[in-house]
Amino acid sequence: MEERKEQFLKSGERLDSLNRNGYEIIQNKEGFCFGMDAVLLSDFARVKAGETVLDLGTGTGIIPILLEAKTKGMHFTGLEIQKASVDMASRSVVLNHLQEKVSIVEGDIKEASQIFGRGVFSVVTTNPPYMTDQHGLQNPDLPKAIARHEILCNLEDVVREGANVLKTNGRFYMVHRPFRLIEIVACMRKYHLEPKRMRFVYPYVDKEPNMVLIEAIKGAKARVTIEKPLIVYTAPNQYHPEIYQIYGDDSAGGVL
Amino acid sequence: MEERKEQFLKSGERLDSLNRNGYEIIQNKEGFCFGMDAVLLSDFARVKAGETVLDLGTGTGIIPILLEAKTKGMHFTGLEIQKASVDMASRSVVLNHLQEKVSIVEGDIKEASQIFGRGVFSVVTTNPPYMTDQHGLQNPDLPKAIARHEILCNLEDVVREGANVLKTNGRFYMVHRPFRLIEIVACMRKYHLEPKRMRFVYPYVDKEPNMVLIEAIKGAKARVTIEKPLIVYTAPNQYHPEIYQIYGDDSAGGVL
Repeated sequence: MEERKEQFLKSGERLDSLNRNGYEIIQNKEGFCFGMDAVLLSDFARVKAGETVLDLGTGTGIIPILLEAKTKGMHFTGLEIQKASVDMASRSVVLNHLQEKVSIVEGDIKEASQIFGRGVFSVVTTNPPYMTDQHGLQNPDLPKAIARHEILCNLEDVVREGANVLKTNGRFYMVHRPFRLIEIVACMRKYHLEPKRMRFVYPYVDKEPNMVLIEAIKGAKARVTIEKPLIVYTAPNQYHPEIYQIYGDDSAGGVL
Repeated sequence: MEERKEQFLKSGERLDSLNRNGYEIIQNKEGFCFGMDAVLLSDFARVKAGETVLDLGTGTGIIPILLEAKTKGMHFTGLEIQKASVDMASRSVVLNHLQEKVSIVEGDIKEASQIFGRGVFSVVTTNPPYMTDQHGLQNPDLPKAIARHEILCNLEDVVREGANVLKTNGRFYMVHRPFRLIEIVACMRKYHLEPKRMRFVYPYVDKEPNMVLIEAIKGAKARVTIEKPLIVYTAPNQYHPEIYQIYGDDSAGGVL
């Protein structure tokens, strides 16, 4: 079995378990590997039976693959601009026999509503580049930098295109850095995405949060629920029980 | 000493210790008494030496009196529309010998910039009415209802007038309910108050927050710091050590 899976890997790649349905994901050891943010977003997002989901900037395909495992959604699409990531994510889809449920599409977030049309998805998810600064970038770092910095798209592109492809009352899920929260809220409102649910992720109970999870609903009225804090560590190297729960029961041997 | 202080009280009133500088505050047992929100805001707000502060809707005067005790600010003004509260707060100022440092002014928040002028204060604080609904109000409840519900002023009035009376780079401090956060942020931005620092107050570490403390700076650029969570209780009837610290060392016998 393991030998057969190895045929999906190219040089420098490895397989990581997702602790769900036996799924595994291909990652490049030298490239951008998914982080806790993608896993937490997949847990925060709500996808109902029969719904269609678009993930903007899907990278390794971690979010659509996890959502396929965790929800009863009908179909999951990942849009990704970097050819090497599209190739890797597509092989992860085949490896997990998800061709019927998950599609990886090569394309630019800035053109999402041209590619897919307007008002077509029930849910949009995104773990976009967080950083606005581009100082000190070196060419060899570019693929990783594109995933982390607003080089090929910025916050407004992601929010605008997410709003455009969503149906009315569709749900937009984003994970981002808290220091950009005010920009995020202002930008969402500009495109009629009303933030309805937010959760701050605090590394420790006595530290500033380093992530924020946001649910916005297209065309909704103003009233937001801030959820209980998500605390990552209870002590050094000791995850909070909720983190183990999110990562799956056998996460001790997995990617956590 | 106690007998002399009693002369400041009218029928139905009581004196509560503030655990700071020996200060006490007059409250009406049947009226609106200040809550933890005012105390937490007074701790969250930063007032530097020589600065002038306006508290919009000061009620008992709790915020200017606490800020006088805790900071090196030069002068503190409380604006209040309800005559009975103005009278009570004014007597608390005299009781604590603060006539040189604290002024209580009778007037309408909606006219604050007409009363005081534009661009005159270094700092504005406010613990405004939180609730938009006015159902089930009875006349005898009106004074308390005015403190809790948007009857005589609404969020936009408070933010607009706060922005108007502040100097450029002046700081606006507000405590409010988290469910209105998105409205608050949108309204602040409309009046060029940029939220720069926020802290969520969680009653327990595993509960939704019931208060949010916000610092906004007039004319600043977008970038916000979300601070570590403020947890109120560690167990039933057991405050978190930070709460005792905020209330003052001898708070066990005080208003907490």
